[in-house]
Amino acid sequence: MTNTLLLPELRELLATQQTDVLKEVLKSLHPARIADLSEGLQQEEVWQLLEALPLHLQTQVFPFYSPAMQQQLVAGIGHEHVSRLLMIMSHDDRVDLLRHLQPGVVEQLLPLIDQTERDDIRHLLSFPEGSVGSIMTTDFATLPADIDVAQALNRVRQQARTVETIYYVYVVDEARHLHGVVTLRDLVLAEPTASIREIMESEVISTRASQDQEKVASDLAKYDFLAIPVVDDQHRLIGMVTFDDIADVLAEEMTEDFHLSAAVAPLVESYSQSNIRALYHRRVGWLVILIFVNLASSGVIAAFEETLQAMIALAFFLPLLIDSGGNTGSQAATLIVRVLSTSEVKLRDWCRILAKEFLVGLSLGLTMALASFVLGYFRGGLEVGLIVGLSMLGIVVFTNLVGTMLPFLLTRLNLDPAVASSPLITTVADASGLFLYFSIATWVTQLIGLGAH
Amino acid sequence: MTNTLLLPELRELLATQQTDVLKEVLKSLHPARIADLSEGLQQEEVWQLLEALPLHLQTQVFPFYSPAMQQQLVAGIGHEHVSRLLMIMSHDDRVDLLRHLQPGVVEQLLPLIDQTERDDIRHLLSFPEGSVGSIMTTDFATLPADIDVAQALNRVRQQARTVETIYYVYVVDEARHLHGVVTLRDLVLAEPTASIREIMESEVISTRASQDQEKVASDLAKYDFLAIPVVDDQHRLIGMVTFDDIADVLAEEMTEDFHLSAAVAPLVESYSQSNIRALYHRRVGWLVILIFVNLASSGVIAAFEETLQAMIALAFFLPLLIDSGGNTGSQAATLIVRVLSTSEVKLRDWCRILAKEFLVGLSLGLTMALASFVLGYFRGGLEVGLIVGLSMLGIVVFTNLVGTMLPFLLTRLNLDPAVASSPLITTVADASGLFLYFSIATWVTQLIGLGAH
Repeated sequence: MTNTLLLPELRELLATQQTDVLKEVLKSLHPARIADLSEGLQQEEVWQLLEALPLHLQTQVFPFYSPAMQQQLVAGIGHEHVSRLLMIMSHDDRVDLLRHLQPGVVEQLLPLIDQTERDDIRHLLSFPEGSVGSIMTTDFATLPADIDVAQALNRVRQQARTVETIYYVYVVDEARHLHGVVTLRDLVLAEPTASIREIMESEVISTRASQDQEKVASDLAKYDFLAIPVVDDQHRLIGMVTFDDIADVLAEEMTEDFHLSAAVAPLVESYSQSNIRALYHRRVGWLVILIFVNLASSGVIAAFEETLQAMIALAFFLPLLIDSGGNTGSQAATLIVRVLSTSEVKLRDWCRILAKEFLVGLSLGLTMALASFVLGYFRGGLEVGLIVGLSMLGIVVFTNLVGTMLPFLLTRLNLDPAVASSPLITTVADASGLFLYFSIATWVTQLIGLGAH
Repeated sequence: MTNTLLLPELRELLATQQTDVLKEVLKSLHPARIADLSEGLQQEEVWQLLEALPLHLQTQVFPFYSPAMQQQLVAGIGHEHVSRLLMIMSHDDRVDLLRHLQPGVVEQLLPLIDQTERDDIRHLLSFPEGSVGSIMTTDFATLPADIDVAQALNRVRQQARTVETIYYVYVVDEARHLHGVVTLRDLVLAEPTASIREIMESEVISTRASQDQEKVASDLAKYDFLAIPVVDDQHRLIGMVTFDDIADVLAEEMTEDFHLSAAVAPLVESYSQSNIRALYHRRVGWLVILIFVNLASSGVIAAFEETLQAMIALAFFLPLLIDSGGNTGSQAATLIVRVLSTSEVKLRDWCRILAKEFLVGLSLGLTMALASFVLGYFRGGLEVGLIVGLSMLGIVVFTNLVGTMLPFLLTRLNLDPAVASSPLITTVADASGLFLYFSIATWVTQLIGLGAH
């Protein structure tokens, strides 16, 4: 294994100002690794380290820093220097960086940048977060269709240093209309005298800047593409999204789904960047809504007040029964939300899944009913054991079906099935669970009462 | 947009046996798109469609079919033909396919395959699911170090048709020891007379076949690599993992985390492939454990039986208070699990996060206390309102801290923080919530009782 420079060695090199050794060592490290190591350094050490790097390597390391570190560095190393970095940075990386800075800082930086580059930045910054435009880059390689492969390779070599990738080269006309794509593999394998028009793939799968980034990430992943071109209404090439953006987008969407599953509204900024006020607002809505949903449960208890008063032992098992219902429902909903979101199961399969889950719920219910019968029996005798066991069976089967159906229903209504979150299911399951519990209690009491006569 | 052949058109072409038009149309489609369209076809139509494709295109479409479809096709198109496909398929794709088939079918297929290919398949099949070995491919391109760039390009051209990618070419000696890597970009941009030793990157980040696939997927994503080489103990090159496997691995890990978050043990097979027995076993463990955790709640109610009997209105708010505690705790835990798993927050930040979450919890608690005071007041007067409001405040602040700390604690103990799942937190929060509720009830009752004297 390589890339094994350790933090103490690095600090030693920095402290003793062995700049030449440092430069040599850093050159052999991957930019991501350099950024990783910096996380353990003091602010001044990070500056010292960056200064030891050539300018083009600085621009490669920068995107790997955390947003907080980027903000500190921009504030620390001076706007002159930052603007020089921005001018040679990859077009999508620099917009990413600017999105992490305060608007005031961005407005101070932009005038220091050349007109063309500045226009490009303003253009990319104008796309909303979450859109393809916000993650695309504008430094792509292009070719005309009417040259041969040898000429094409020369043109690609000329463009290589200023573009994000030369593995996909887009074939465009003078008005930038997209006509095809050639891969570097195609160019290397083709006869040097073949024309680009002959070897290009003319059926290009493309996307729009306004499209949802999640859709494009999943397309890239599905088709195993290295990049996908972005076109405007006139089918003119305006950008490209590359494979290295997929993982970031997938991670973002994953966080969003997780938060939904716990009834947290998606955070606009990352957790660390969100202040207490923002975190409060993302969470309070659902919590207060759920308080009111819970009134149904209170209503059920009020309706059965006399039953409860007469048999206070029933109260012991209240938390057990409503929790078990919620837990079972959450499990079912989580399983179904995942299979729906990975398209493993389609909406039309609901009937088959419901039958399957009915049997799973029945098996779970019987096991849990047995366990709770034993608990109830030891606490309050046969009567309580029967009531608690039967209620558990009914509650588990019922909440399992609710947890199974809710994601299908939400999908049918074109809502995100992840809204069928554990807290929502738990709260909805409670009222029905309590109703079942007290109904069974009344029924069993009468039955045993009659039998005793 | 292209690739717009629609299902009805395709069925029309198949029904009228317009094979030539069909072949022409299919050639322009991406293999993933062909597989997508097939999902809407009858079994016989899929066979007909595959037959219209040249052999090498069949091998490209096959990996995009769902496991169930792959099983049906293998059974339907005959083992002779399948073995021919397997011999020319990409090495990782064919092992993937074989992993989806019944062991009996695999044993029938293997004897039909040439010795060398068969050995390669058996070798790759021997790695356990979830390891790097199970997703790596063995059809990589290699070069010796002592040739020049022009010679290297020729060798790469010769290998191009039989390897997974030529974008990364590994530099090895005769014993296959890994010495470096050159990208196709490097080769195209370098002087034809430069030696490979000069232009290769000799600090290669590599991995082992026994490594966890999740670790490699995150390394690929982090370093923006197209591929990462796999070496053995003697640093000999034995395989490579390519970028197109990342998305699959990330999706798998995401499903696992989701399931953990709802206290479902990870499924070994996909949901559709799991039978009722398997689904039951994945879920019953946690549910039964949580029943016993719940005994603590029953214990608290038993201890305060007299308080409850004397003031039955307290029972109305039982579900409300314990649900709110569980919901708040789940939200906090989900937020923290995510920031920990994306490394946005480190273990050492726990103190800072705890302070932040204390303030968030306090704000949430005050809001929810106000809402529940109003509810309590209307149901049972000032006394009940005060009890319910104060309890809500205490419960929300407390469960929020529990939800925040539990993921840190689990990480510290080297456990997966996703185990701090909603059901676990809900159940743990209940007992403490109930204790707080009844303690406050006793205290407020005495206080108001004293005031009335």
